[in-house]
Amino acid sequence: MRYELYYWPEIQGRGEFIRLALEDAGADYVDVGRLPKRGMPAMMRFLENPSTEHPPFAPPFLKAGNLVIAQTANILLYLAPRLGLVPKNEALRLWAHQLQLTIADWVVEVHDAHHPISGGLYYEEQKREAKRRAEDFREERLPKFLDYFEQILKGNPKGTDYLVSKAVSYVDLSMFQMIAGLRYAFPRALAKLESKHPRLVALHDQVSARRRLAAYLSSPRRLPFNQQDLFRNYPELDG
Amino acid sequence: MRYELYYWPEIQGRGEFIRLALEDAGADYVDVGRLPKRGMPAMMRFLENPSTEHPPFAPPFLKAGNLVIAQTANILLYLAPRLGLVPKNEALRLWAHQLQLTIADWVVEVHDAHHPISGGLYYEEQKREAKRRAEDFREERLPKFLDYFEQILKGNPKGTDYLVSKAVSYVDLSMFQMIAGLRYAFPRALAKLESKHPRLVALHDQVSARRRLAAYLSSPRRLPFNQQDLFRNYPELDG
Repeated sequence: MRYELYYWPEIQGRGEFIRLALEDAGADYVDVGRLPKRGMPAMMRFLENPSTEHPPFAPPFLKAGNLVIAQTANILLYLAPRLGLVPKNEALRLWAHQLQLTIADWVVEVHDAHHPISGGLYYEEQKREAKRRAEDFREERLPKFLDYFEQILKGNPKGTDYLVSKAVSYVDLSMFQMIAGLRYAFPRALAKLESKHPRLVALHDQVSARRRLAAYLSSPRRLPFNQQDLFRNYPELDG
Repeated sequence: MRYELYYWPEIQGRGEFIRLALEDAGADYVDVGRLPKRGMPAMMRFLENPSTEHPPFAPPFLKAGNLVIAQTANILLYLAPRLGLVPKNEALRLWAHQLQLTIADWVVEVHDAHHPISGGLYYEEQKREAKRRAEDFREERLPKFLDYFEQILKGNPKGTDYLVSKAVSYVDLSMFQMIAGLRYAFPRALAKLESKHPRLVALHDQVSARRRLAAYLSSPRRLPFNQQDLFRNYPELDG
């Protein structure tokens, strides 16, 4: 089956968590928003069509045959068993999904560090509030999330390489993305914290060296981090 | 099986979405945080025990036999098939979960309307920022979410009573909670919007009249809305 991913064509954003899973598995997929002939109009037509039976609230969404699935973690819940990126065991699938939802919460906080008032306003219109929120993010929330996931790696009875089991899962790919994005957005804050989270750093390195992912990351398909994205580098927010 | 719900004992919060499903189904469960003999110490012991194999990032979490499951939407994903609160069909289960995750995103925005800077600070310490964020919430986000879910009801090919299929699902119970909470927190803003969302209002009424839920809602097990909760009534945030 050829999967169709629908997402904004110029940012990594939430779509990247899906792209990483599809790329690592070598899945047959098209990134519709980036196709010259279809692109954004195809995505907007879909979102705005009143006869769509299960309309997404927002991108990303995935077409898989007749199914249309939205919400990043839900898409991964559907895809991962089909891509071999989660164990078969139900308890471990729930655990993987739980971790992915915790990452989703973290992503909201990363975004709101630069947009604490409204996604509809420019950063410059909420810069004062962003400085306060980003300080709390750096001092309280960022260490809390990093400590939590480092502890998960440390406590994994199947070994400390991966979060869910002894093999890589989609959650590990998402964690790679978090570390990469945080390094871009908060280089100073992260530099101070990395030495306390060696297993997360090792996970990042191990994921980025995976054969298909390494090829993806050095290809033009991997969009660069940029200042319209979830992860943004504003030095004044980095302490 | 007797389920054990672990959540803060003095607020509805995210735990309420789980309580509503358990109560509507007449499930055998205990609300551990509110038990005189166990209460908060039992919950904190669990959260802080370094040997917990799958530690939650935060409450609520559910013990179901040997399973420990966290993240509200994940708990409902697990419970709903067992409680008869979701169709059997995989496509509809994914759709229900997608809607629940969209509600979860909405809940974050409800909370952040009064806490836009930090959950670790008092409201009074972020009141100025809250006024700005709440205005955006009332003017942009609240109508967007209400319009979306009204449209889902309108477009449900199985009838406009419920969100997912022709029968009630856990997502409908959660939507009842959203409408009830928003009426408490933003009575003026909601009064202006309700006439444009008649199906959501009807859904709220229909859910609240369900036999077991009506009994629950008028029992002491239903905690009152209060000013420590997700939904808070600050008149200055209500426009």
